[in-house]
Amino acid sequence: MTSRSSFEETMAGLSGADPGAMAAAREHQDRLTKPRGALGELEEIGIRLAGAAGVDPPPVPEPAVVAVFAGDHGVAGAGVTPWPSEVTAQMVANFLAGGAAINVVARQVGARVVVVDVGVASDLAPGPGLLIRKVRPGTGDITSGPAMTRIEAAAALQVGLDVARELVAEGARCLLTGDMGIGNTTPSAALIAHFTGRPAAEVTGRGTGVDDPMLAHKIEVVSAALARAGAELEDGDHLGWLASVGGLEIAALAGYMIGGAEARVPVVIDGVIAAAGLAVAAALAPAVVDHCFAGHRSSEPGATAVLEHLGLRPVLDLGLRLGEGTGAALALPVIQSAARILGEMATFDSAGVTDKDG
Amino acid sequence: MTSRSSFEETMAGLSGADPGAMAAAREHQDRLTKPRGALGELEEIGIRLAGAAGVDPPPVPEPAVVAVFAGDHGVAGAGVTPWPSEVTAQMVANFLAGGAAINVVARQVGARVVVVDVGVASDLAPGPGLLIRKVRPGTGDITSGPAMTRIEAAAALQVGLDVARELVAEGARCLLTGDMGIGNTTPSAALIAHFTGRPAAEVTGRGTGVDDPMLAHKIEVVSAALARAGAELEDGDHLGWLASVGGLEIAALAGYMIGGAEARVPVVIDGVIAAAGLAVAAALAPAVVDHCFAGHRSSEPGATAVLEHLGLRPVLDLGLRLGEGTGAALALPVIQSAARILGEMATFDSAGVTDKDG
Repeated sequence: MTSRSSFEETMAGLSGADPGAMAAAREHQDRLTKPRGALGELEEIGIRLAGAAGVDPPPVPEPAVVAVFAGDHGVAGAGVTPWPSEVTAQMVANFLAGGAAINVVARQVGARVVVVDVGVASDLAPGPGLLIRKVRPGTGDITSGPAMTRIEAAAALQVGLDVARELVAEGARCLLTGDMGIGNTTPSAALIAHFTGRPAAEVTGRGTGVDDPMLAHKIEVVSAALARAGAELEDGDHLGWLASVGGLEIAALAGYMIGGAEARVPVVIDGVIAAAGLAVAAALAPAVVDHCFAGHRSSEPGATAVLEHLGLRPVLDLGLRLGEGTGAALALPVIQSAARILGEMATFDSAGVTDKDG
Repeated sequence: MTSRSSFEETMAGLSGADPGAMAAAREHQDRLTKPRGALGELEEIGIRLAGAAGVDPPPVPEPAVVAVFAGDHGVAGAGVTPWPSEVTAQMVANFLAGGAAINVVARQVGARVVVVDVGVASDLAPGPGLLIRKVRPGTGDITSGPAMTRIEAAAALQVGLDVARELVAEGARCLLTGDMGIGNTTPSAALIAHFTGRPAAEVTGRGTGVDDPMLAHKIEVVSAALARAGAELEDGDHLGWLASVGGLEIAALAGYMIGGAEARVPVVIDGVIAAAGLAVAAALAPAVVDHCFAGHRSSEPGATAVLEHLGLRPVLDLGLRLGEGTGAALALPVIQSAARILGEMATFDSAGVTDKDG
């Protein structure tokens, strides 16, 4: 663990990928008992893991933890989602009871689930598996004003950083992103539009299932929030944009990713909410991207926009649009296998196998 | 377990998917605590698992076993691969020592590996994890004559069926296909061209890494074998085609898939060699397809041709072209998660979560 430096010091101190470790891993792949390149994307993931860890072979990223950051959104009342805000707290209870999709997938892949209340509107009862780190009870409605203050945005970033540090201190060697927050695809679309420079209509999706009229309205809401924020903020004022059009769990996710990069522990990115957090984190500290692995291609267009913007290729493409961390958890065994290939496979020499290129 | 009926009786007695179980699973998906359809392809896999098992929720397909069927090919001496045939036996030794890619991935996903010698050219020393069921020591060169006799093809099919039955009797509840055989993408391409009706040039790929001149020659070899067989055989003589242009491990894989279907245990299909086996199995007994799950989209064009021909969608698309069962093993946690979602997730009612469509 590094010392508990300030957020700004942490960001300034981050290392990106180690090119020497990547070169070593690339050369190593070609000595393993398989035709060169035959493991396709798995070889590239292994090379990126080596770069992120700074060593070849990279450590197998386990044990893994999914941190599900939960928050509510004032904009949920503005007709952008068919779900009532109280579902956020109901789903937190479902996570804690082990009945949600992320619990099921996490059990399958051997990951632990923790839930972080960084901004649920209602008060939650303390219980095992729940970290109560509420910065404020939900954001303001971004159609009429900022989601939160800069101080609150910084506090939510710090919550994510702290959670990452705590999980790593407890032994986690892979951090998966999870999220819950009714309405959160709307601020995610606004952040993604801003940070990728794409128009709102290109990066705003149907979220948990909005119909055509609601989608058109949602795009108007995103556009209006961007116009309001743009009138007040410089383009490069990243914290200002996060505060103005973002969300508490999105800010915490960005901080969590920075914490993974600080510890050189791989971070597996889930869907569009995590992608929005990654867009923020990459703007604040570009080295973070080298420590992030895109679990899947969400069916939300904003997620793909961020992955393309940052040059990340998704592991899975299963048409998922649930969030919670499900796509990250489903990708985990592939990412772990990629590390294990470099750590455990025999070479042509060690196994006595004839190498056609040897 | 069903009784040990003959191969023909087994094929005639196979059941396809149960439409009632599929309908129940589809309706069940919509009651789980997630927006409808939000788990995308995972929901479809769960519905197919229910259909294959005949019950909703379907059992979680575990424990899983990868059977790696190994055989040699006379055509390997005809300039279709840069690798010498002795690599088949060397790689079997690597599998038994635990150093190959399939061993590494299988350890990650909790699957057991068994190797079946159904036609390796050299004699292999008996050892733990190796089933010696050699039908003959490698096939004949398909450029000049049949790969094997009909009796040998039937025997290799029976080897696969027997192995599936034995593994299921030992407790396996998911069968993964694996293969090893220098030269085996050539007979696979010939079988796939025949069973899908596509030209050789469309379904013949670079295998473990052939260059442009070798690829052109390989396509000529496949075309010549198809022309020779076509002059001797009726189109619908499936066993005749398997014997004439196939391979021992490909035949065994087809029998293994039939054994999975007999036991209603899901079979996870790896790459192009398994796809060739599936094309044979589907011709012999179409109900087999309902029990098969395509682990990934191999970069070999013949694999995609079979998946399209049979209407199967691959779980992963990682540019793999190794074989051994690696793509099937990497997909296993996704398939297991799909079953577990139906078996373990809370419903809106049970979790007290508000359903917007309820």
